[in-house]
Amino acid sequence: MTRSEADALLALRLGIDRAGRTPIATQIAEQLTSRIASGVLVAGNRLPSTSDVADHLEVNVHTVRAAYAQLAADGVIAMQRGSRALVLGFDANAARTSRTGIPTFTIGVMVPHFSDYYAEFLQAVAQSAEVEGWLPIICQTRQYEAGTVARYVDQMASRGVDGLIALHFETPDDAETTAALAMAADHLPLVFVDSAPLEFGHQIMVDRVAGALEATKHLLDHGHRRVAFISTPIGWSSRSQLRQGYLQALEEAGLEPDVELEIAAGDMSLDAGAKAASSLMLLDNPPEAIFCAGDILALGALQHLQDMRVSVPEDVSVMGYGELPFSSLAGPPLSSSRLPARELGELAVANLRDAIDGRSRTHIAPIQTSLVARRSCGCR
Amino acid sequence: MTRSEADALLALRLGIDRAGRTPIATQIAEQLTSRIASGVLVAGNRLPSTSDVADHLEVNVHTVRAAYAQLAADGVIAMQRGSRALVLGFDANAARTSRTGIPTFTIGVMVPHFSDYYAEFLQAVAQSAEVEGWLPIICQTRQYEAGTVARYVDQMASRGVDGLIALHFETPDDAETTAALAMAADHLPLVFVDSAPLEFGHQIMVDRVAGALEATKHLLDHGHRRVAFISTPIGWSSRSQLRQGYLQALEEAGLEPDVELEIAAGDMSLDAGAKAASSLMLLDNPPEAIFCAGDILALGALQHLQDMRVSVPEDVSVMGYGELPFSSLAGPPLSSSRLPARELGELAVANLRDAIDGRSRTHIAPIQTSLVARRSCGCR
Repeated sequence: MTRSEADALLALRLGIDRAGRTPIATQIAEQLTSRIASGVLVAGNRLPSTSDVADHLEVNVHTVRAAYAQLAADGVIAMQRGSRALVLGFDANAARTSRTGIPTFTIGVMVPHFSDYYAEFLQAVAQSAEVEGWLPIICQTRQYEAGTVARYVDQMASRGVDGLIALHFETPDDAETTAALAMAADHLPLVFVDSAPLEFGHQIMVDRVAGALEATKHLLDHGHRRVAFISTPIGWSSRSQLRQGYLQALEEAGLEPDVELEIAAGDMSLDAGAKAASSLMLLDNPPEAIFCAGDILALGALQHLQDMRVSVPEDVSVMGYGELPFSSLAGPPLSSSRLPARELGELAVANLRDAIDGRSRTHIAPIQTSLVARRSCGCR
Repeated sequence: MTRSEADALLALRLGIDRAGRTPIATQIAEQLTSRIASGVLVAGNRLPSTSDVADHLEVNVHTVRAAYAQLAADGVIAMQRGSRALVLGFDANAARTSRTGIPTFTIGVMVPHFSDYYAEFLQAVAQSAEVEGWLPIICQTRQYEAGTVARYVDQMASRGVDGLIALHFETPDDAETTAALAMAADHLPLVFVDSAPLEFGHQIMVDRVAGALEATKHLLDHGHRRVAFISTPIGWSSRSQLRQGYLQALEEAGLEPDVELEIAAGDMSLDAGAKAASSLMLLDNPPEAIFCAGDILALGALQHLQDMRVSVPEDVSVMGYGELPFSSLAGPPLSSSRLPARELGELAVANLRDAIDGRSRTHIAPIQTSLVARRSCGCR
C-alpha cells in the first residue's frame, strides 16, 4: 500500500462492530454506500483493495470481498479484474429497493435555506413528527440548487428515510433539480408545500393569486393609482401566480397595467429589493405604491427608500408578502400577507402520513393568506 | 387479538424486508427500539404478543421471539411469563454499546429554537459537515427543555449518530437537561458552542465578558452616566458573564452600579424586552442608555419605547448583543455585538472531528465578538 493509498483508506474512516447483529460484510457495504451517497467517494474513484481494507479493519479478506460483491450487486461499484474496484455512483432507486419495507421512522424536510421565515413551519413539522415518532432531518437546499438537492436525496435514500417534505420548491425551470426530485418521488413518498405545481408527489397549495389580489386591492383602496410590482425572480411559479392577482386587482379597478411598473427581482434578498425599488423611483413617473412579492424584497426596498430620504408611507406606500417575524419591527412597520406556517407544517406531516400509507389525499382547498396592515401601506 | 390490541399493533407501523441483508429478527428489534427511543412506546407499555406480531408481518413466531429476546438482552423490555412483554424504556448507553464502532456519518446538532439568529451558524455547520460526508440532523430543543433534550438524545443514540453539537445550552441550573447531556457525553462525542461551562464535552467559548465591557463602554463614551442592563434570565450563564463586563465598564468609568438599573428578562422574547424597558422607564430617575443582553430583548425594548413616544437615541440610547440579521432594519437601526457565527459553525465541526477521533482539542482562546455601531446607540 502506498502512502497515498493508506491516506485514502484512513479518510474513509471505516469502523466495524464485531459484536453487532448486522453481518460485518453488510456493515462495511453500508458504510461505503453512505460515503458514496454523500459524495466523499465519487464516480471514477477507485476503492482501496480488499486486502488493504481487511488489514486495516483486521477482518478476513473474504468478508471484505463479500462487502464489495454486495456493492457490485447494488450497482454502486464495478469489479474489474486486475484493478481496484471502480465507484460508479449512488443509485437511489437501487438503494431504496434494497431496503423496501423497513421503516426507519425518519423523514427528510427540505427548505430553501435556514431563516426565521421557515422557523414556525419547521417547528410545526417537528412537533407533528414527534407525535408520529418520526425524527425529521432538516436540509437547507441553497434555494434548491441542483447539486445540493441531488446529494441530499441520495443521503436520505441511503439512510432509508420514510418520506420527504419539500417547502417552497420554486424553480421548476431547473430541469436538473426537478429530475432529482422526480427520481426521489419514484421510490419515496414526497409532499410539496407552497411549491411550484408538479406532476408528482402530494401538493399543499397556497392561494397566491388571492393573496396578491387582496394586497394590491388594499393599496388601491388607499387611493393609489400607480401601483408597482416587484416580483419573485423570472421562472419562479410564484411570480406568475402573484402577478395574476396583481393584474386582476388593476383590472377590477379599471386600470391599465403599465409595464414600466413591473420588475422582477434578481433573487430573494434585501439587495435585490433595494435595487428594484431604486429602478422604480428613477422612473419619470415613479409609483405611488409598491407591492413586493416577499418581505425580504420589501425590507430591502424600505431600506433603499430610507437611504434616499423618500418617506414611507407619505411619499410611497410599501406592501410585502409572506410575513417575516421581524417585519413588524421595521421602520416603518411593514404591511404584509401572513402565511399560516403552523397549519402548513401540520398539513405537511398529515399528508406525508397519508402518502406513506399509500392513501391519496382527499382534495385540499388552497390555503389562504391573511393581510396584516401596518404603517408602511398607509394604515394607522 | 382484541380490537384495541389490533389498533395498537397497527399504530406501531412495523414493516420488514424479506430480501434484505439484515436478519428479520434484527429488523423488528431495531424498529421497536426506534419506537421506544422516540417515545411512541413508553415504560409501562406492553408489547403486542409475539404471535400477533408474527401474524401481522407474516413471519414465523420464532423470528419475533428472537427479536424480543434481543430487546430483552438490550434491557429495553422485560419478558414476563404469562404476560405480554413490558417496555422498560430506552437506555442510550446500552444502545450505543450495541453499535460501537460502526460510523453512520450522521451528526446531531441541537439549537434552542429555529431562527435567523442561528441560520448562519447552521449553514456553516451544514457546509463543513458536507466536506466530512456527514449528514447533520438538526434539532430545536425548545430552549433545551429537559424532556425534549432527553428524547432527542435517545433518538440520536438509537440511530447511532457519530457525535453531537450543542449551541447555546444556557441553563446548567436545569439538572434534568444537564443530566441528559452528561449521559449522552458518556457514549457520544459532544461539542458545546457558546454555552454554559460544563465539566464534560468539548467547549468552544465566546468571550462574553469582553463583549459586554465593549458595549457598555461604548454607551459611556456617548456621554451617558445612567446605563441600565437588561440581562438574560436568572440562572443563565450568559447573565453572570455579561453582567461582569457591564459592571467592569462602570467601574473603569468610576461609576457606582445602581441596582435599580439592572433587570433580568423573564425569557428571551420581544415581550420580555418590552416589559423590562417599561419597568426601567417608570423609575423616578430613568436610564439614559440601555444595554440589552440579546437583540431580541433590544428590539422588544425599541418597540416599547416607540409605543411610548420615547425617541431613540435622542431620549435614551439602546444597545443589543448577538446581532440578528434584521437588527439593521429596525427603526432605528440597532447597535449590537456580532457573534462570528460562521467561524463558530466551522470550529464546531472541526472540534467534533477531533472528539470523534479521540483527540483532545488544543486550547482555543475564547472567540471575540465585534461591536456594530448603528443609530440606536447614538452613532451616525
